[in-house]
Amino acid sequence: MLIVMDQLATAAEIDAVVGAIEARGYTARPIPGGQRVAIGVLHNHGAVDASMFLGLEGVKEVIPVTRPFKLVSREFQVEDTVVRVGDAEIGNGHLTIIAGPCAIESDEQALTIARHVQKAGAQLFRGGAFKPRTSPYAFQGMGEEGLRILAHVREETGMPVVTEAMDHEVFDLVEAYADVIQIGARNMQNFSLLRRAGRAGKPILLKRGLSATIEEWLMAAEYIMEGGNTQVILCERGVRTFAHHSRNTLDLSAIPVVQKESHLPIIADPSHAAGRRSQVIPLSRAAVAVGAQGLMVEVHHAPETALSDGAQSLYPDQFHELCRQAHAIHGMFSPYRDHAADIQRSA
Amino acid sequence: MLIVMDQLATAAEIDAVVGAIEARGYTARPIPGGQRVAIGVLHNHGAVDASMFLGLEGVKEVIPVTRPFKLVSREFQVEDTVVRVGDAEIGNGHLTIIAGPCAIESDEQALTIARHVQKAGAQLFRGGAFKPRTSPYAFQGMGEEGLRILAHVREETGMPVVTEAMDHEVFDLVEAYADVIQIGARNMQNFSLLRRAGRAGKPILLKRGLSATIEEWLMAAEYIMEGGNTQVILCERGVRTFAHHSRNTLDLSAIPVVQKESHLPIIADPSHAAGRRSQVIPLSRAAVAVGAQGLMVEVHHAPETALSDGAQSLYPDQFHELCRQAHAIHGMFSPYRDHAADIQRSA
Amino acid sequence: MLIVMDQLATAAEIDAVVGAIEARGYTARPIPGGQRVAIGVLHNHGAVDASMFLGLEGVKEVIPVTRPFKLVSREFQVEDTVVRVGDAEIGNGHLTIIAGPCAIESDEQALTIARHVQKAGAQLFRGGAFKPRTSPYAFQGMGEEGLRILAHVREETGMPVVTEAMDHEVFDLVEAYADVIQIGARNMQNFSLLRRAGRAGKPILLKRGLSATIEEWLMAAEYIMEGGNTQVILCERGVRTFAHHSRNTLDLSAIPVVQKESHLPIIADPSHAAGRRSQVIPLSRAAVAVGAQGLMVEVHHAPETALSDGAQSLYPDQFHELCRQAHAIHGMFSPYRDHAADIQRSA
Amino acid sequence: MLIVMDQLATAAEIDAVVGAIEARGYTARPIPGGQRVAIGVLHNHGAVDASMFLGLEGVKEVIPVTRPFKLVSREFQVEDTVVRVGDAEIGNGHLTIIAGPCAIESDEQALTIARHVQKAGAQLFRGGAFKPRTSPYAFQGMGEEGLRILAHVREETGMPVVTEAMDHEVFDLVEAYADVIQIGARNMQNFSLLRRAGRAGKPILLKRGLSATIEEWLMAAEYIMEGGNTQVILCERGVRTFAHHSRNTLDLSAIPVVQKESHLPIIADPSHAAGRRSQVIPLSRAAVAVGAQGLMVEVHHAPETALSDGAQSLYPDQFHELCRQAHAIHGMFSPYRDHAADIQRSA
Repeated sequence: MLIVMDQLATAAEIDAVVGAIEARGYTARPIPGGQRVAIGVLHNHGAVDASMFLGLEGVKEVIPVTRPFKLVSREFQVEDTVVRVGDAEIGNGHLTIIAGPCAIESDEQALTIARHVQKAGAQLFRGGAFKPRTSPYAFQGMGEEGLRILAHVREETGMPVVTEAMDHEVFDLVEAYADVIQIGARNMQNFSLLRRAGRAGKPILLKRGLSATIEEWLMAAEYIMEGGNTQVILCERGVRTFAHHSRNTLDLSAIPVVQKESHLPIIADPSHAAGRRSQVIPLSRAAVAVGAQGLMVEVHHAPETALSDGAQSLYPDQFHELCRQAHAIHGMFSPYRDHAADIQRSA
Repeated sequence: MLIVMDQLATAAEIDAVVGAIEARGYTARPIPGGQRVAIGVLHNHGAVDASMFLGLEGVKEVIPVTRPFKLVSREFQVEDTVVRVGDAEIGNGHLTIIAGPCAIESDEQALTIARHVQKAGAQLFRGGAFKPRTSPYAFQGMGEEGLRILAHVREETGMPVVTEAMDHEVFDLVEAYADVIQIGARNMQNFSLLRRAGRAGKPILLKRGLSATIEEWLMAAEYIMEGGNTQVILCERGVRTFAHHSRNTLDLSAIPVVQKESHLPIIADPSHAAGRRSQVIPLSRAAVAVGAQGLMVEVHHAPETALSDGAQSLYPDQFHELCRQAHAIHGMFSPYRDHAADIQRSA
Repeated sequence: MLIVMDQLATAAEIDAVVGAIEARGYTARPIPGGQRVAIGVLHNHGAVDASMFLGLEGVKEVIPVTRPFKLVSREFQVEDTVVRVGDAEIGNGHLTIIAGPCAIESDEQALTIARHVQKAGAQLFRGGAFKPRTSPYAFQGMGEEGLRILAHVREETGMPVVTEAMDHEVFDLVEAYADVIQIGARNMQNFSLLRRAGRAGKPILLKRGLSATIEEWLMAAEYIMEGGNTQVILCERGVRTFAHHSRNTLDLSAIPVVQKESHLPIIADPSHAAGRRSQVIPLSRAAVAVGAQGLMVEVHHAPETALSDGAQSLYPDQFHELCRQAHAIHGMFSPYRDHAADIQRSA
Repeated sequence: MLIVMDQLATAAEIDAVVGAIEARGYTARPIPGGQRVAIGVLHNHGAVDASMFLGLEGVKEVIPVTRPFKLVSREFQVEDTVVRVGDAEIGNGHLTIIAGPCAIESDEQALTIARHVQKAGAQLFRGGAFKPRTSPYAFQGMGEEGLRILAHVREETGMPVVTEAMDHEVFDLVEAYADVIQIGARNMQNFSLLRRAGRAGKPILLKRGLSATIEEWLMAAEYIMEGGNTQVILCERGVRTFAHHSRNTLDLSAIPVVQKESHLPIIADPSHAAGRRSQVIPLSRAAVAVGAQGLMVEVHHAPETALSDGAQSLYPDQFHELCRQAHAIHGMFSPYRDHAADIQRSA
């Protein structure tokens, strides 16, 4: 941490800051500059709370230097984490496609879609049983009945299933049925849910919050890892900006940045980012090309009758095309991956 | 809802949309324009899900017309809701000031600050017992011990206390101790927590989410009211934007907008918006001047030793000054309030 | 345009709105709904200014229906515009790569880089002679001397050159030397510059403004086309959001949206979006995969000594690799382009 | 400037960075920390371009320390700048109200409105003669005829007039007629216009760009001051965020921040921030309460017939009420201003 003093800060104010640093057990190292003094804070283990010093007399700015996260950091673990679910490996250069409807609506609907997406190349099946909805009057999902249908889909097709645990109360239930437990964007900083996920025996798919920085997102993953669960998959799903031609703005630069900062696998959800069908295939190609290790895509065999998010659900033949294109780009991309990595190392 | 068709949409596509509308039990009313056809959706009760129609052939855009909220709406209840807590009335032209430390640290700390803020004019005392923290390694609050200290403060000073319930698990406990239960910004769309709050017998202070629209915020309040709890206080606390000279951007225009759309009282939290002490007094004045019915402010007698958010906590004499200024503006503002309202009615 | 009335609007207020519409020569069509009345505005040619009606008594909301742009619109011209510069065709399924330093620093620097990028596969050379800089104390470019160097590069290599015209004053000069004239992000709504560009005899590369909506961007292009210059290339270069892990957030969803709304070619500038070298190659791949018809990339043979934007400039070997990857993705993408387009048509 | 190295940076990489710093004539001061090395850059005059070092091997982050602006800085000039226009003083504790229509439409319209606003208490008259418009098809202002009308209004009423110079070409003309020359939000980084304004003999009203940081805004003012014109008034007019209940989000925290960083006077424009009439009075009160030294407000005697921005224009009686409320808050605020400043000094 670096504490930047006002140009007009007095010697007494500088001394007081040094004193405050040392009173907390750190080492203070004043750095006289041309126009002002800055004071380095050394020998801290982990991050120091900037606000401790920001209010002291003569302090202009407090600049954090060390990243606050630890277990999720690439500096802590150099090799990529690989999450194994059934036959699928997420991370490690694979491209894993997760697909299914926004919400489970019936056994028949789920099985119909599952067979379509499996045939097209999806490795995991997704479907919501408990749905977070902006309105209390909107369809909230089938609940446990939805989970039973997911289990039935797995039994029939062999595909592992991904579904969301919206809260602590239903976590046990979801954990009992799901192969991968999703934590949604709105819950990214629901810390009790993150702690519960840290005690889960199943991998966690952690979506980025609507306006979360990379740092906050990785800190949310840190909560899960700190609880003992190292099987975390990150999922970029768009952030909220001034732009309204897509529901959210898919932030693809987050993917190389996360891959540099963290060893955790990261996938993309173009369906929720776009909010409309016509952008899903192009954004899927882009996500694979930027280096995402997987895609999560909404598919429905009859989107016009879907109980939620029909506008962003692909038709089965579109999803088939999406898989073909995604694998083609991924296939081409892998050979030069190491080369690209070499080159990027110097950057 | 209005469905706007492409200029080139065929008669068959228009018919198909009309059919889809009627299949859901609504009335379709095509409106031929100069360049394209639009189709009105009538006789819906409550909001219609736009996504049902967005994916149909020939549809260019779907525009919601009716607001999705109901119980929170000014159209539903014309008179202001007034929330009574002890002697304080929130709403109804009063200015209610809530103050205290970010986190309860000890009985002595809490009582010292409580006596300061009460003397300066605060009517409610705030203090965190369970703290949501970005990092799992940061101080997480004293938990139930903190709640007991809050109860002791109330006993000693007579001030009602406000504290946050971070999750469903601790809600019963918080409800047992607190006079007003806060739901934090990160939990604004934690729907199970909102449902639990809807069953609570205490007023709820609902903070706006970091990137929540007014509509999403009011829908979150709708969850609480729909559950049966009509005692909801809204709290604007800044939104996340590109700007970084304050921690968040206090969106004061939200206050007149909410007052127009909803009957619920709304207050402002300048401390979390600013993130630094020097902006808290000016923003407090602005919030009162714009029409906020209360303020929630962080105060600490020794901010440089505070366990969290010290940089934004006011010193007691600053808070005293804040109260003086806030009441002065509020006092002057009330007399012409009705007149102002009359004038604004025509806008 | 649709004017939505308050639930409580009186018949007199509705009549007054109808009168105001007709007074402006449009047709008013009231649409009685379940809860409120809406009034359609018909027979307008082009967009109607919403603000005319927003302030009338009883009006709750005014919703534009028709898009305000005309010449740039896909509805106006169905076929893609193709911009020809030397041997290069921008649009029409080609992938055109533009590369060079941020700023021209010397004849030797420019030629060295031009030879590198030409060898790697760039078709156009870029370099700034007049540089818009946030600080008046920063290097502002070599001015006309820079333009002469660009002309020399063209003479030596045969590559057409792209450079920015920062203002009306230097436009003639830039037009005399450049093959493509760039209008920078900060000037996207410099309307006199746009009008001047509309009278230019050279193609215009129009960058998206830092916080411009798609609509505002296309309206800026409309200014140029309305002036008579149909040779406009759009360039997505990232928008400003709360995120700070990249300099701007590259909004790749803008590319398919623009391609749907407009016939103009669109390329991407990953260098300015990222602001740091390590994201440029992944974002270039993503931009090509999403469907961009070109890339504009900063390259420097010695970025550590560059006079501006060194951190985002690629080394020549990195640029070589970028071209290889971009063309590989583009090559694969073209065959199924039509198929993809077919599928997307239904979306 | 502080250069933060990777944890795994080698001694050779650190040496190379030190070398690069010294090669540019600065002093390098390595600061070994617990986990990584940081390197301070000293003895630079003015800001150092971060990008010079960001791309070097082993560099994780580059953190600017010194602010890049100079002439506009409070550190450069401690006392407030006061801009005098006619009898009005802007700055120095005064509250200056500027009012008038968005666009000048006719001599009669201008005079009618001018007499209304003068009677209500406005000291300066505003009105657009050259209008920047998103669409080339929208009303672009009356041009020089509008300037002549402004001069006539000044002659008749004695009020100084404020109007916008949209570009370099019309600057001479505008300078000849106006008392204060406005540079609009879209032109905040039109650097040739800023340089021209720096040579003007009239005060400049510089609006904040739609997504400009405080630093960029002050740097734009630095361009003007660096050119020799010290009479600059800043104007906060809202920034673009995800929120859409107001046209822009009025960022009132910018006002105390600017007042701390700079000696230049700062006013607020609630009309353009809100975009609708009903928010203008509350936001005006808030702006005065937060400490703005003036307001610029749109007023029209018949907004429903206005050629632009009618929805945000106040009726004369509303403006009268606004002035009454604004002066009441300002009057009360001044007495304790010094006291408040004292208290804030310690923050």
